[in-house]
Amino acid sequence: MTDTDLQDCLERIRDIPDFPKPGIVFKDITPMLGHGPCFQRVVERMADLWRERGIEADVLACPEARGFIFGAALAYRLGLGFVPIRKPNKLPHKIARVEYQLEYGTDAVEMHSDAVTPGQRVVLVDDLLATGGTTAACARLVHDIGATVSACVFLMELGFLDGRQRLKDYPVYCLLTVD
Amino acid sequence: MTDTDLQDCLERIRDIPDFPKPGIVFKDITPMLGHGPCFQRVVERMADLWRERGIEADVLACPEARGFIFGAALAYRLGLGFVPIRKPNKLPHKIARVEYQLEYGTDAVEMHSDAVTPGQRVVLVDDLLATGGTTAACARLVHDIGATVSACVFLMELGFLDGRQRLKDYPVYCLLTVD
Repeated sequence: MTDTDLQDCLERIRDIPDFPKPGIVFKDITPMLGHGPCFQRVVERMADLWRERGIEADVLACPEARGFIFGAALAYRLGLGFVPIRKPNKLPHKIARVEYQLEYGTDAVEMHSDAVTPGQRVVLVDDLLATGGTTAACARLVHDIGATVSACVFLMELGFLDGRQRLKDYPVYCLLTVD
Repeated sequence: MTDTDLQDCLERIRDIPDFPKPGIVFKDITPMLGHGPCFQRVVERMADLWRERGIEADVLACPEARGFIFGAALAYRLGLGFVPIRKPNKLPHKIARVEYQLEYGTDAVEMHSDAVTPGQRVVLVDDLLATGGTTAACARLVHDIGATVSACVFLMELGFLDGRQRLKDYPVYCLLTVD
């Protein structure tokens, strides 16, 4: 791996105007993911947080689908278990479920009830912190099973949506803030 | 990481009868994923294929959502780019699209047109080789863009469905065959 500069890697994230609907600027991480040394560099930087911030974790829990990308690479890097948090009706075994409000209507997240054990320390990992609604629902899932959330780790946050407010009970770490 | 035996790790994959519908036995990999040393060990074993089999690749392309788990960990481990292959209307930029037949109806996979460049060598990574329909559609996507598929790598295959027949133009590697 070349000593690719982290900032150069993050600059590969591109703006796509009007996706998924008019007026929204979508942050497209795929050009960064598609560059091997950059993807490695970004995952390394996320892993550095464990040492720098003293994060203690038994497993990483990650909402589908983009959360799987950073969660799986980090779990491999750190030697921690990977727990998928999925949309309804995807997981085959006994599940815990949390519903949450969207702008219009509701959505839900599910996790296997036996995926974490009471008392375990869970870090939630996703690519993007926007309003924080999904991550807050994931945190409730973890609590419902009797485990604790020791941190929330994201590649980037949309600072203007103030998702940290919804996650104020947890340490929140992001490599990049977009204002 | 302890020198956990690969076989012990693979035995954590459990059978869930009658999921997603009666008569189907679902292979649930989540207990293996949730055990950090086992997940590491399995990803290491998949990465060993590159050296042992002489796989040559520029990027890994992986269908959502479970393909992201092994694809991302392997991409990180090997220093290769990660290209997400997604269900319709998820990707924000210009896409290539391939439709394929299901038992009833059709489905489709999409990839950003600029995610691979003509002539690049792509390895397709997923957790499960069943009928091979999704992977064959992913291979057509790669070809449509002018790149080549140098191998298909899976955690496991359901041998009785003979998905290899649909992928007979490519080297296919699986850590585990279920008969």
